[in-house]
Order: sequence, then structure tokens, then C-alpha cells
Amino acid sequence: MVVVIDILRATSSITTAIAHGVEAIKPVESLVECRQLMMDGHIGAAERGGKKVGGFEVGNSPFSYMNPEFEDKKIAMTTTNGTVTLKKSKGALQVLVGSFLNYSALLSYLERLPCDVLLHCAGWKGKVNMEDTLFAGAIIYGLKQMFEYNSDAPMMAANLYKQAKNNLKAAIEDSSHVSRLIKLGLEKDVDFCLKFDEYKVIPILKGEYITKLKLSDMLF
Amino acid sequence: MVVVIDILRATSSITTAIAHGVEAIKPVESLVECRQLMMDGHIGAAERGGKKVGGFEVGNSPFSYMNPEFEDKKIAMTTTNGTVTLKKSKGALQVLVGSFLNYSALLSYLERLPCDVLLHCAGWKGKVNMEDTLFAGAIIYGLKQMFEYNSDAPMMAANLYKQAKNNLKAAIEDSSHVSRLIKLGLEKDVDFCLKFDEYKVIPILKGEYITKLKLSDMLF
Repeated sequence: MVVVIDILRATSSITTAIAHGVEAIKPVESLVECRQLMMDGHIGAAERGGKKVGGFEVGNSPFSYMNPEFEDKKIAMTTTNGTVTLKKSKGALQVLVGSFLNYSALLSYLERLPCDVLLHCAGWKGKVNMEDTLFAGAIIYGLKQMFEYNSDAPMMAANLYKQAKNNLKAAIEDSSHVSRLIKLGLEKDVDFCLKFDEYKVIPILKGEYITKLKLSDMLF
Repeated sequence: MVVVIDILRATSSITTAIAHGVEAIKPVESLVECRQLMMDGHIGAAERGGKKVGGFEVGNSPFSYMNPEFEDKKIAMTTTNGTVTLKKSKGALQVLVGSFLNYSALLSYLERLPCDVLLHCAGWKGKVNMEDTLFAGAIIYGLKQMFEYNSDAPMMAANLYKQAKNNLKAAIEDSSHVSRLIKLGLEKDVDFCLKFDEYKVIPILKGEYITKLKLSDMLF
């Protein structure tokens, strides 16, 4: 069982899209593939380095996925880190999408699971980042030692979360990616992505598409 | 510039040995190589999984390196994680050995350096661990943003250190490796390895051997 985490902003945007009625999202790695799927009736979503790529309908802002016109539509999405992490997670028993926006829904599913869980943080271009680690820490903190740890990393993430939980924004303000987004004028995206429990959906990658986790998908 | 960090216990023991007058330490990866060097007049030091390996003179306890008989002698040393990390660091401008035992000496060298610094934590069998991260955090905290960060990892380590600094032992007690050492009856080793500034030496890997950093080695 893998939970993919890319708080700023891929997994927050995916959660938002699925919560707002998007039927399915296909994560793809390249802009070329994304463009081909646009011709095939998908809405094209592409972000690189924090910015929407020209010629695509949306970028990676969660607000752009609240569009009622996207209801029951399919989206092809490519982002700097998030979609790569989703693709790398394939082969797991289930691949879920986590964000603060669906924290409690995810937590109540995880705490009933009879299997190992890997919290797969996207980070930034192959390196660890603060916001994804804090969310992983929030999950570990919330699970209250129901799981054994495979290394010290979960404990470290939970400690960082405990230290930061009363002011998550302050804790990530110095982080590389957050400064980058704020410089790009995306502070309202950052604020939204740090909100707990806006939605109750759990997106799940099944085959090539991310859809809403249904009762029949649940492993208990 | 690389600082190798394996708090429990390789880099703490190396610091202790060099401070107590050992002439040079050759880190080797295999027990076979270590044994060959014993025949060649070296003192043989070998640890695996926290325990001294049979047939060698010392293991990985810092106390065993306080032996006056080792003064001006050469040691061949192989440990589970530390020596591998030292070997992987070869090729850097300089490879230094860091531990709480020589914290301030190391810090005052690093803060005057005109180059990038990589804090290379040994961890445990390829995974991150708490005690090495806390020491890296102590260095980053001590350097007070004299350096820019290459990712969020240094900030995360410094935050963990800030949270833990008034009681380092409590912070590492739940860590995988510490529980392992305490079970092996090595709590006094853990306590010693968490002491700040017992020594003023900075061990440096030059060629195949670790010796004491001299004034003529300094890069400023």
C-alpha cells in the first residue's frame, strides 16, 4: 500500500479535482503524451517549475480544478514531481493520493488496514522537502504507533510535524519550494493546500487512471 | 568538503582514538582486509551489527580506543556503516570526521571554509537514522545560516536538533539503533557519544588513512 504525497500541489489538486466531480485523472510524465490525450478528449493539465505550460487548459493550482465544466470529464495531468511519483508507485497493492485536504478520510482508511504502508513523498526533483515530510508526519502522528517503523524516518517526520502543527505555514515558509511558489504569486494556493479536511474523498490510482476510492475497493 | 557522521559509534570512536594519540586509522570494508592488515602490524578493529567480531582486538566502543598501548600505532577498522560512508566520501576536497565529541572544533573549522560542505550521514544500512541527523542538525544550527541550503533536508535536521537539544538522549531513545545498542548493554557508549566537546581534534581522511587535521591542512 502506497500513499503518494505531493502537497504543493499535485496531490492537493488531484484530491480537489476528484472531490469536485472529475471522473478520472491520467497522470503522464511527458508534455507530448499529455498533448496527445488532449486530442483524445481529455482536459490537458500541465505544470513545470511551478507554472502552467502554454497550450494546456490548466496548470497545477487546486482552484483551477473546482471548475463545474470538468464534472464527469477525464483529465490528463503532468507535473514536475507528483506524476513521476505516482508512476513510480505502480505495482503496489493500492496507490492512494494523500493531502491535508483529505487527511482524516485517509487516516481512517489507513488505520484499519491489514498491510504495510509506504508514505511516498514526491519531494522536489529527487530531494526531500519540508511540506511533504510534514504531511507524512501528520499521518504517522495520527496513526499513534499502530504501525512499527521500518527506519527512523517516520519518527523524524512525526517529530517535525509535532513541532510545526500549530503553524504549518510558518514551518514551511523557509522551504525551497514554498518560497518559489510565493514568488510566483501563488500564496493562496499554499494556504489552501495546508487546510485540513476540506474533502472526504480518497483518490486511488487503478490501472492508468486516478478515480475515487469506492466501498468495494476497500481492503477490510 | 565532506563531513562523515556515524555517531553510534564509528566517528565517535575515530575521534576518541585520534585524540588519544593513535597515529592513523585505515577504514576498510571487509573483515578479510582488516585481518590482512593485522598481520601487517595494524591493530584490528572490527564491528558487525553492534558487536565486536571474534579474533579482532577491538570493536566499536569509544572506550576501547582510550588504550595507552595504541599510542602512535596504526589501526585497521571495519564497521557496519561508518567505514562504508568514509570510503564513499573519497574524492572530496577533504574528508573530515565529525561527532559530538569534537563538535566545536569542527564547527569553527567549517564556519571559516570558502567551499560547499556535505554532511554525509552514515545512517543504518542505507537508511536515515535519528542520531546522525541530529548531529548534522547541530552543525547546521551552529553555522547559523552562513551557508545556503541545497534542499530542505538541512532545515529539517536543524529543526529536529532544536527540538531535541535539551535532551538528546530522550530524542534518540526510540531510534532503531539506540534500542539495539542498549539491548547489547552499551548504554554507556551511547551516553559518551552524546557528550559535546570532549576533544579538540578533527580527524581527516588523507589517502588511505585517517590522521589528525594539522594547521598545514587547513583551507584558509
